[in-house]
Amino acid sequence: MDAHITVLTLGVRDRAASRRFYVDGLGWTPALDVEDDVVFIRAGHGVILALWEVAKLAAESGTAASHHGTPPISLGHNVGNADEVGEVLDTAVEAGATLIKPARRQSWGGVSGYFADPDGFLWEVVFNPGLAFDENGDPAFSAIEG
Amino acid sequence: MDAHITVLTLGVRDRAASRRFYVDGLGWTPALDVEDDVVFIRAGHGVILALWEVAKLAAESGTAASHHGTPPISLGHNVGNADEVGEVLDTAVEAGATLIKPARRQSWGGVSGYFADPDGFLWEVVFNPGLAFDENGDPAFSAIEG
Repeated sequence: MDAHITVLTLGVRDRAASRRFYVDGLGWTPALDVEDDVVFIRAGHGVILALWEVAKLAAESGTAASHHGTPPISLGHNVGNADEVGEVLDTAVEAGATLIKPARRQSWGGVSGYFADPDGFLWEVVFNPGLAFDENGDPAFSAIEG
Repeated sequence: MDAHITVLTLGVRDRAASRRFYVDGLGWTPALDVEDDVVFIRAGHGVILALWEVAKLAAESGTAASHHGTPPISLGHNVGNADEVGEVLDTAVEAGATLIKPARRQSWGGVSGYFADPDGFLWEVVFNPGLAFDENGDPAFSAIEG
């Protein structure tokens, strides 16, 4: 398995305030703006910075309930199909990670699971059929078939 | 200013244990291994994951003293020359960031400073004359002239 961090998700207290800082303040350009939910910003070749409400990140990853003190940041390792999510989680657990959430279909249409590394850093292993990158590393979002 | 996250630094309690997890366990390949200091792993096109002892990260960024509760993770925004470090820090502060450490020459030969975004996420703005990326996004490290 190669390392590829694709999405960095910051769990933010106030998405609108966070958007003002990064988009209006720093002048960064949103690649996708989902009203009242999430802002995706291209942050490099094949890399996205996501600003997501911390409550939603905590709910999806289960960190609020099971993993006190975890930094509300998630490092995304994207894979090519749904089966790979579980395989990577298994590899991580064999290597000493703590399983936080097993692979499951998420409300937004993809499949993901979460593990914590030996220091508690949260990783999301994710298959997102609605996200691809073109040859320039720009993200391309598409609607996910239900 | 465009967003470009270049280095993600995890402040880890035990660098050897963290290396065992990522390198031996997950099978990721170090791009540079600095004994008793830091491990750099290519984590995508132009992206590096750094495993650094949390005490060293805290000492350089001053987070232990000035910024309680910050997740021990630093998002690196690399720039092309030393002057740009201060300019980006200024822009961030004008946009509402908290200055954590002003730009200064670091012991490893580069210039960097730190700010915290509105949620307290730590960003390092850094000019590292010893780090470049080739056209494949692979990192190339070189010795820094003193």
